[in-house]
Amino acid sequence: MTETSDLFTLKRNFFVLAHRVNTDGNFNLNDLCGSAGRLDGIIRSINSSLFLSHGIRRDSAVHAIMMGPSDPPKVLSILGSSVRYLNPDERSTASLIKKALEIALPASNGSCIRSTPGIYVTRGGLDHVLDNVKGRSFLLLENADKGRKILETIAMDVGNINFFLSDDRDFEEEEIETIMLTSDGAISVSPKVLHTDHCITVIHSILDDIEN
Amino acid sequence: MTETSDLFTLKRNFFVLAHRVNTDGNFNLNDLCGSAGRLDGIIRSINSSLFLSHGIRRDSAVHAIMMGPSDPPKVLSILGSSVRYLNPDERSTASLIKKALEIALPASNGSCIRSTPGIYVTRGGLDHVLDNVKGRSFLLLENADKGRKILETIAMDVGNINFFLSDDRDFEEEEIETIMLTSDGAISVSPKVLHTDHCITVIHSILDDIEN
Repeated sequence: MTETSDLFTLKRNFFVLAHRVNTDGNFNLNDLCGSAGRLDGIIRSINSSLFLSHGIRRDSAVHAIMMGPSDPPKVLSILGSSVRYLNPDERSTASLIKKALEIALPASNGSCIRSTPGIYVTRGGLDHVLDNVKGRSFLLLENADKGRKILETIAMDVGNINFFLSDDRDFEEEEIETIMLTSDGAISVSPKVLHTDHCITVIHSILDDIEN
Repeated sequence: MTETSDLFTLKRNFFVLAHRVNTDGNFNLNDLCGSAGRLDGIIRSINSSLFLSHGIRRDSAVHAIMMGPSDPPKVLSILGSSVRYLNPDERSTASLIKKALEIALPASNGSCIRSTPGIYVTRGGLDHVLDNVKGRSFLLLENADKGRKILETIAMDVGNINFFLSDDRDFEEEEIETIMLTSDGAISVSPKVLHTDHCITVIHSILDDIEN
């Protein structure tokens, strides 16, 4: 049994709030937008969090905080350090996720099961995640003033960094308040409002440049 | 009938060499990686070229130069200025592309047919494209020295700009030589080797910052 906090130890962590994504695995692989509750968008965030052209970002992890029917809340974590069988196309990743969600998970917060190498499902929601993150945390909001500059300033001295993003729906006020209670600030990375996965790509790019 | 050069007039053009992608529309929507010749990657490049969170980049276009079986070469162009029915998930975009590729296209270079609003198929390959681009053109190569800086320097004064990228396969030497004959230089955007669609997201991000 893995502790939740063990899942959050890699250098770059991306937490995506998936407001209505399916949580029981009972969806059709041909209908990721509909029956799976916009799982397609979550999969693209997984892709941009973890893929390099000829490999995986071994220092990064992505965690979908899943709140849709019928078995919420769950956190699906994919660790770049150990993940296997991950391909960049949406359908094959959806198949891995379906398998992970179909596993019966105890009701108690923090219960965690490994589905396939590097893919874990944990019982819990946003509060449980925030209780277990370490390092610095940032809320990603579009149009936060000068977010890119803030990121460039702070990123140099961090060991482990967490970004909280929303899916295709905006954060709810209550979610923003909850995250801000423990985070180091709200940032944005673009003058435009971007898709979640594109934001993740831009964050990686900024950090890659800084570390280079 | 549209002239090829009419398709290349938007401000930001992304040309992706699709070395083995299917060109006759005879593929299975459940197997975009296999029977469609890695069409999944081309679709992700379309996504990152055109999508904003709540809309389409109306000043951008993406052009896949398709060289796979059984009816090459073709250029599939999607214009942000006029495209309709485009959704961010891979499967629905594959369906639009399948429809476009199934249209019988004359064998003469430059023959062009509109499939659905904003989506065009043109007979021709890399040479035909290069004969028709205007403005500045850049070859995107990973690990080209200081590519990002170069882009930041040149981008300020351009009206219309073209980026040439390869798919999941590297450019062939001959392709690089051909593109370099008419381009303004080779650039890179990251110290890491990124997926094609992630490169496009980073280019957009740099240009968005410059224009802001």
